[in-house]
Amino acid sequence: MKLILDLDTGIDDALALAYALALPDVELIGVTAVFGNVTRERSVENNRNLLALLGAAGVPVASGAAHAWAAESYQPGEFKYRIHGGNGIGNVALPASTAPVCGTPAAEFIVEAARRFGGGLAVVATGPLTNLADAIRLDRAAMASVGAISIMGGALTVPGNRTPFAEANICDDPEAAKYVFESGLPVTMVGLDVTMQTKILEKDIARWRAIDTPAAAALVAMAEYYYKNESEDGTLGGAIHDPLALEAAVNPAAFSMLPVNLTVVTEGPGRGRTVGDMERLCDAEKSARVAVGVGAAAFVEKFCGAIADLLARG
Amino acid sequence: MKLILDLDTGIDDALALAYALALPDVELIGVTAVFGNVTRERSVENNRNLLALLGAAGVPVASGAAHAWAAESYQPGEFKYRIHGGNGIGNVALPASTAPVCGTPAAEFIVEAARRFGGGLAVVATGPLTNLADAIRLDRAAMASVGAISIMGGALTVPGNRTPFAEANICDDPEAAKYVFESGLPVTMVGLDVTMQTKILEKDIARWRAIDTPAAAALVAMAEYYYKNESEDGTLGGAIHDPLALEAAVNPAAFSMLPVNLTVVTEGPGRGRTVGDMERLCDAEKSARVAVGVGAAAFVEKFCGAIADLLARG
Repeated sequence: MKLILDLDTGIDDALALAYALALPDVELIGVTAVFGNVTRERSVENNRNLLALLGAAGVPVASGAAHAWAAESYQPGEFKYRIHGGNGIGNVALPASTAPVCGTPAAEFIVEAARRFGGGLAVVATGPLTNLADAIRLDRAAMASVGAISIMGGALTVPGNRTPFAEANICDDPEAAKYVFESGLPVTMVGLDVTMQTKILEKDIARWRAIDTPAAAALVAMAEYYYKNESEDGTLGGAIHDPLALEAAVNPAAFSMLPVNLTVVTEGPGRGRTVGDMERLCDAEKSARVAVGVGAAAFVEKFCGAIADLLARG
Repeated sequence: MKLILDLDTGIDDALALAYALALPDVELIGVTAVFGNVTRERSVENNRNLLALLGAAGVPVASGAAHAWAAESYQPGEFKYRIHGGNGIGNVALPASTAPVCGTPAAEFIVEAARRFGGGLAVVATGPLTNLADAIRLDRAAMASVGAISIMGGALTVPGNRTPFAEANICDDPEAAKYVFESGLPVTMVGLDVTMQTKILEKDIARWRAIDTPAAAALVAMAEYYYKNESEDGTLGGAIHDPLALEAAVNPAAFSMLPVNLTVVTEGPGRGRTVGDMERLCDAEKSARVAVGVGAAAFVEKFCGAIADLLARG
């Protein structure tokens, strides 16, 4: 399967990137950068440096949206620095990649791949849905042909993490997310309903720590920063949100999915809430599948093992 | 199956009561009254008069909570009169029942039946959960032995109908609802997720209209009042919320159920929202099953047909 990751990199985005390179049947054909956990510029840089670190400097990195549809600029809030560190990757300093930035803007990059690979392509978006919405706006038919669109974002049956109603990625661009969900395209939503069940702690990354390479050291430092800071009380571990959205694209059978026609609230205290669209409640066809259950322990084991294998390969 | 209906009667409560009497394998052993669509006193009276009208004056009616746990009194809001009429049953005047009110308070009545019938008892609550919470507080073990507890209330994957977050029954006593959901007892939640899919219109009750009895005339008048007033624009029909909760107790296989450990928001703008309890998100056992799908057309047909048969018998 050809894969594009759309990332606001972010530690768990970085882990999703490593997981993509670790999965045997996945060919990462590009990474597109969006604002969110960090600025768009920082996301581009983190993606390039991470790919170089992991021996994949040839994978193109395309630059996307710098801010939400309804905004004119963006700066990450303080809490994002707390969770992801000042540079987005746990204050780990990576060598600068010498690979050029891809000349194609993110949305066009995604659309071109959709036209070329259609059902053989998966797009996994782990930040605000701005690039994805832009791609659908550019060429809805091409995007409708994509084999799998999986997003980390939203909270259907649980409270949000940014507000009592809204998850952070959706909250960062509710209008774009609403556009994506109301497009009618089949989208798998991997939100807090399941990602809050998949957490890593020190014991889970022990195998990474045993590997003596710069890449292993960097990922260990990031993961450690993350599981110490992602949960509010520091004891419950870090929810590895973004890798789970990739898992849903490559291994949907591991999930319980609820078919729902989703929309996003854009007004009032619920702004950013993902919720069933009453206008389409009685429609027999449902465009979104919301992940509501997953074998969490099995996933954490698979994820950590795959990354350990990647790191051990050198 | 022995059945207790806990009603805040209400037109769709009245229809649930008729449906209970119409179902062949159900023995209605009591009706308990709670505030909600109407005052507790009006609910008692409506239940007694409806039972007499439908030839079941011998079914005991027990009086329950007059207000929410956190309140000292209750008066229905204007919108309840709009939907249910000034007397709760579409301004239809029923002959006064001469049957006495049961001497046992509602919560005790429920608990005594739970002790006596255990797994052979179903309790269906279609108003605020105050009586049900009181019963669980009285004797949790007895209530844990009940065969089925099914409630009409809540909204998990869709917006509320009282606020953008909360459904009316839960909103009328969030503290009692929270107590019920956090009790760990197995509860089936039949909320707006599914009830907004099951609506009646004139064509559905045509068979009732053809029957020339006072009971048929009364139910037709109530249903007509309801489907003209329950939906905001008057064109989409009346969502027959309460009978669907009874259906879930007697015919759970007709529903798609999502297992969730639920709680109820009691603070802030989300007050009255039914939502997954983050404290119990990773627990393998889920106490509530939330109805998220139902064959709506088949249910409306079954429901209207059963009531037509009941009316034709009488």
